[in-house]
Amino acid sequence: MKLLIVNPNISRSVTDLIEAEARRVAAPDTAITMATAAAGVAYIETRFEALLGAHAVATIAGERLGEYDALLVAAFGDPGLQALKEALDVPVVGMTEAALMTAAQLGQRIGIIAISHRITAWYRECVDQYGLLSRLACIRHLNDPLRDPGTVQVDHAARLLELSQKAVSEDGADVLILAGAPLAGLARSLAGQLPVPVVDGVSSGVCQAELLTRLKPGSARQGSFAHPPIKDHAGLQPAIAALLGHKEV
Amino acid sequence: MKLLIVNPNISRSVTDLIEAEARRVAAPDTAITMATAAAGVAYIETRFEALLGAHAVATIAGERLGEYDALLVAAFGDPGLQALKEALDVPVVGMTEAALMTAAQLGQRIGIIAISHRITAWYRECVDQYGLLSRLACIRHLNDPLRDPGTVQVDHAARLLELSQKAVSEDGADVLILAGAPLAGLARSLAGQLPVPVVDGVSSGVCQAELLTRLKPGSARQGSFAHPPIKDHAGLQPAIAALLGHKEV
Amino acid sequence: MKLLIVNPNISRSVTDLIEAEARRVAAPDTAITMATAAAGVAYIETRFEALLGAHAVATIAGERLGEYDALLVAAFGDPGLQALKEALDVPVVGMTEAALMTAAQLGQRIGIIAISHRITAWYRECVDQYGLLSRLACIRHLNDPLRDPGTVQVDHAARLLELSQKAVSEDGADVLILAGAPLAGLARSLAGQLPVPVVDGVSSGVCQAELLTRLKPGSARQGSFAHPPIKDHAGLQPAIAALLGHKEV
Amino acid sequence: MKLLIVNPNISRSVTDLIEAEARRVAAPDTAITMATAAAGVAYIETRFEALLGAHAVATIAGERLGEYDALLVAAFGDPGLQALKEALDVPVVGMTEAALMTAAQLGQRIGIIAISHRITAWYRECVDQYGLLSRLACIRHLNDPLRDPGTVQVDHAARLLELSQKAVSEDGADVLILAGAPLAGLARSLAGQLPVPVVDGVSSGVCQAELLTRLKPGSARQGSFAHPPIKDHAGLQPAIAALLGHKEV
Amino acid sequence: MKLLIVNPNISRSVTDLIEAEARRVAAPDTAITMATAAAGVAYIETRFEALLGAHAVATIAGERLGEYDALLVAAFGDPGLQALKEALDVPVVGMTEAALMTAAQLGQRIGIIAISHRITAWYRECVDQYGLLSRLACIRHLNDPLRDPGTVQVDHAARLLELSQKAVSEDGADVLILAGAPLAGLARSLAGQLPVPVVDGVSSGVCQAELLTRLKPGSARQGSFAHPPIKDHAGLQPAIAALLGHKEV
Amino acid sequence: MKLLIVNPNISRSVTDLIEAEARRVAAPDTAITMATAAAGVAYIETRFEALLGAHAVATIAGERLGEYDALLVAAFGDPGLQALKEALDVPVVGMTEAALMTAAQLGQRIGIIAISHRITAWYRECVDQYGLLSRLACIRHLNDPLRDPGTVQVDHAARLLELSQKAVSEDGADVLILAGAPLAGLARSLAGQLPVPVVDGVSSGVCQAELLTRLKPGSARQGSFAHPPIKDHAGLQPAIAALLGHKEV
Repeated sequence: MKLLIVNPNISRSVTDLIEAEARRVAAPDTAITMATAAAGVAYIETRFEALLGAHAVATIAGERLGEYDALLVAAFGDPGLQALKEALDVPVVGMTEAALMTAAQLGQRIGIIAISHRITAWYRECVDQYGLLSRLACIRHLNDPLRDPGTVQVDHAARLLELSQKAVSEDGADVLILAGAPLAGLARSLAGQLPVPVVDGVSSGVCQAELLTRLKPGSARQGSFAHPPIKDHAGLQPAIAALLGHKEV
Repeated sequence: MKLLIVNPNISRSVTDLIEAEARRVAAPDTAITMATAAAGVAYIETRFEALLGAHAVATIAGERLGEYDALLVAAFGDPGLQALKEALDVPVVGMTEAALMTAAQLGQRIGIIAISHRITAWYRECVDQYGLLSRLACIRHLNDPLRDPGTVQVDHAARLLELSQKAVSEDGADVLILAGAPLAGLARSLAGQLPVPVVDGVSSGVCQAELLTRLKPGSARQGSFAHPPIKDHAGLQPAIAALLGHKEV
Repeated sequence: MKLLIVNPNISRSVTDLIEAEARRVAAPDTAITMATAAAGVAYIETRFEALLGAHAVATIAGERLGEYDALLVAAFGDPGLQALKEALDVPVVGMTEAALMTAAQLGQRIGIIAISHRITAWYRECVDQYGLLSRLACIRHLNDPLRDPGTVQVDHAARLLELSQKAVSEDGADVLILAGAPLAGLARSLAGQLPVPVVDGVSSGVCQAELLTRLKPGSARQGSFAHPPIKDHAGLQPAIAALLGHKEV
Repeated sequence: MKLLIVNPNISRSVTDLIEAEARRVAAPDTAITMATAAAGVAYIETRFEALLGAHAVATIAGERLGEYDALLVAAFGDPGLQALKEALDVPVVGMTEAALMTAAQLGQRIGIIAISHRITAWYRECVDQYGLLSRLACIRHLNDPLRDPGTVQVDHAARLLELSQKAVSEDGADVLILAGAPLAGLARSLAGQLPVPVVDGVSSGVCQAELLTRLKPGSARQGSFAHPPIKDHAGLQPAIAALLGHKEV
Repeated sequence: MKLLIVNPNISRSVTDLIEAEARRVAAPDTAITMATAAAGVAYIETRFEALLGAHAVATIAGERLGEYDALLVAAFGDPGLQALKEALDVPVVGMTEAALMTAAQLGQRIGIIAISHRITAWYRECVDQYGLLSRLACIRHLNDPLRDPGTVQVDHAARLLELSQKAVSEDGADVLILAGAPLAGLARSLAGQLPVPVVDGVSSGVCQAELLTRLKPGSARQGSFAHPPIKDHAGLQPAIAALLGHKEV
Repeated sequence: MKLLIVNPNISRSVTDLIEAEARRVAAPDTAITMATAAAGVAYIETRFEALLGAHAVATIAGERLGEYDALLVAAFGDPGLQALKEALDVPVVGMTEAALMTAAQLGQRIGIIAISHRITAWYRECVDQYGLLSRLACIRHLNDPLRDPGTVQVDHAARLLELSQKAVSEDGADVLILAGAPLAGLARSLAGQLPVPVVDGVSSGVCQAELLTRLKPGSARQGSFAHPPIKDHAGLQPAIAALLGHKEV
């Protein structure tokens, strides 16, 4: 299968982290293509930045329409995910959604470790949108400004480990998610150092995308994820217009 | 006060409906400016269309930055509303949010009357995002394809009245919202024909925007609605970049 | 419009605070009349005290029936509010409900600052009754006994500011409500000193009452806020009986 | 033990129904005293009528202070119940609360059969206030105006049976509550005719009051059900003032 | 009435504690029979241990079928309770369910005091299953390993009192449950030392079992608590098979 | 990887259905071993039957301890799943949990199609336990008694298709789960005939088990899914005792 992984941020160093972890976990017959947002911010922490990220992902999804069997939105918070599920006939997977649904099978209450204070409100709303707020034990977070999103997991390794341990002992987390593309691969390197199972969004996302492709569940022709109704539009970039028009109804 | 009302759809006939109702209800010292999305679809019914609408509203908000004391997002579902609250120092009001908060003071359980079946899933998610799902009595909707969003309230008057009456008698609604910009002004013309109080999004939105401006509650310098942190960005239109950069931190 | 503002407590010093803030914010054509409970306690903190306050408000509402276009219940916790909405044809607004619906448009998670520990359980139940518990970030409160409800905001200014700041930084509040009639006007005097938008119940209540009057949404002839069915009654004060009987059905 | 049962309505025929059922179920050493509201309506269906009922119950509770070991509020909807729990040192039990907590031990999802359409919104809010909305299967109700609340169970026997059966087969109720004092005793006479366990408020209330008295759990000296703080009051009837002042703190 | 009380743990010392408290509270005409699990663990703290306890209770229930008028599952967490309600025609009561429904009539928010950290996750899920999570103020717990479940209330008396007081003052509990069979009778001996009402599972369970027996609500012939449909089975112990087959349909 | 699939029912015809679907979907390097409950009923529809199924699964899990890398509980409702997660160091997957977490990535609201009316209450509680009740659109079900659980999908093909279509058009389901081992493989044969994506529990379960094995998230040494504390036990079958004792702490 051909998997398109889109980094909704403009940070190529983070794209590299995502790609490295994706290639470590992908099945042999999964062909990975990476894409980085052409327009946006260094890393998304807020609702407004997510609005920009959503548009950037949609643009890439439209530009490469027909070139992928599944798409992975590779920023925690899943900008544009639900919207793209309507527009595309192939599985569209988000790092947060995939990590949550994976973690939910490993424990009852889920702890999330995040890279900044500001990002936590947006993450919480994202968990709530997926209906899983009752399973959220906590969102713990780094406090210091990030020097570089591409090196955060190295710069703050000890603090990330400490936050993880407190999420278990103080907040009752049964399972942890190391959240955010800048932490891609950290779960793997912390293996054995944490007291509960731990997942990250990139490897969960790649594997869930492969799983959904393999199950061939079919696509939506009715319901709220069917393709948007054909109607007049104007002023849209060709890539976006392609998403509106590519599907026969 | 200067109120900018943005129609996130490209339909100028709907912009005209919105403007007519807005001018009927606005206070004498409210100066209304209308804007219509330059890019988008005829009327928003889905998450993907809302993603496009959100970007269109943000673009207009950035283009006219400094020219308004409050902004009203004039499509039910409030595309981009929460994101723009982060980016702007002035009150940002949404038709859905304003209608819900107004209706919530007139009755305990709220019925929504909508213009299409497809639109109801998105509306429901929107009500849920505002935490008011427990107060939603129903979303009833027209079933026929719309000839023209600018004439839907005339074309389907009898059916809209019937849906409203059923929302009260069968679903237990204490108060009704006639939802969607294409129904702007209908609450006014149905006055006296419905068994419960009824509000619409445009008049609620204009009045709540005036109210928030009058109360001078201050803007967010901390918390999740503070301006997004200053960080690297690239590839953004000038109007969007203006929203990211205009506020000293 | 003629707005009747009823203080459900017997404290005239609090009535004066309410009136001062109400007059500062009211529109030029709003004629305010104040009333203070003839029977009740100095300030309501508990469910039992609220029962007394509810009866006192109803009595005043009945005594002055026909003399007002809207009624504002001016104690946080809104004693008798939902009951009076059934009995009256005009808008009935509560300080809590108005403040919550206003605050909900300014931020996602709401922090409430209260004047005593005892009062917090009743406030929490009130927020829950309005369906907004999921949006409550915290209720923080003064701990010391109040010397005089009429001077609490002066006596405890520094502590109230500190509680507000902690609600934002520790509890994640995006917006604050300074709760309780004894704090009427404090939001105005703290303007600029708090890191997030802040509203109070009196100014929110006056403005929402004006808004509801202006929108003319109609009154309930069906549903659970229609006038109570005509039936036998006995032993009621004339003012209360007037509320039961004044509306043709 | 001395059990005071207060009918918050003025209908003596309903008081008689309540008394008959209470005496059938009470333990031999329970001495029952009945009281009927001196002021109020024929039967409570709405929030405003409940406000009146709450005041009437409080008045009786104060008039007879010291003469009872437990008090049963004998109208479904439990007017004044939570308020009186603060004011009294003895167990205060409500028909709805007792019936719900009894039914909850007999099945997972509870169906309520009510005497009028209008009453259902108030009942639903009452169930919600007790935190049990997730266990409510349905509230089904009679539709016809009641000739006499004292004869409703005779006048509408077949319809009440039909509603009960539909609550099980169509709404998934595991257990039923025949709600409202006018239905007192009906559960007993329908024994064996219903497909699931059935309880009523009067017998549940009497037995739960006896149970709480027997367990001697102690009364609240802290928390939100401690006696209201001593403070200035004015204008109150002596019975009400007695409730405010009777408890040393 | 004949009440069978089953300790799902193998600890006879705990059975003795349960029996002592049960006999103190039971009505004169209640004949109590005790049973202790033949297979299981010393005390149940986890979901897996509860699975074993559930099977042990079912085995005893089947072995003694016909010998009791009501059954009390005497371990907090109620292993097997809902399952046995399907299989038996007589009331089946659980310590947790009975304590929660009793406590819910004594205060709005309930605090639970537990004997170990590990047990709290299971308790929380149990409260959630009963739909009462919104009424849970806290679960506070001992931290030290238990020397002997039969002496825990003596060994840790001061700590249990301190936890109870914090549940009230810091977590807002209005009423307390001293949870777990090893704490049977402690509520009685702490009478007067706690600031809010307190109940335990054994006395609540015995009294609620008596109450349900006295009310004669009838048993389920339809709905989800009717007897499991008759169908092929194999390999079951005779006691379990008896539960499947004893009821005519 | 070695995957042990346990049918908690005694029906070998259903085991065959499960095995056929599992082999169709499993990866080439997955070695599947099937097991059928030695003790239990023909198919589980109720809480009591699930108690028996849970014990049967635990027995098999203990008997074959060390022989598998992951275990799939192959009855909808997941009897014993959460308990076994505590006892085992390898991933334990349930048909319901796996199907829900898969479906949740394909649509917002999930419809479940079930094989009997009786089974629906248990399924609903299962969905609730996973925190996903807000995402459940409906549980629709066959009404006729099943001739043979091994042929239900053939016997009722047209009705199952009709139920699926109504779940979409009337209940708003975006994605469907064909629930219950007797429907294993039906999703595959209905491919293309349903208007929304569809998953079943067996293929979801096999693939999620493979995914969790591949991700190597680690096992729980703390939190509520750590191995039950070592303590006295008695009377247990060797297979069960093995589960209690096999893990060093």
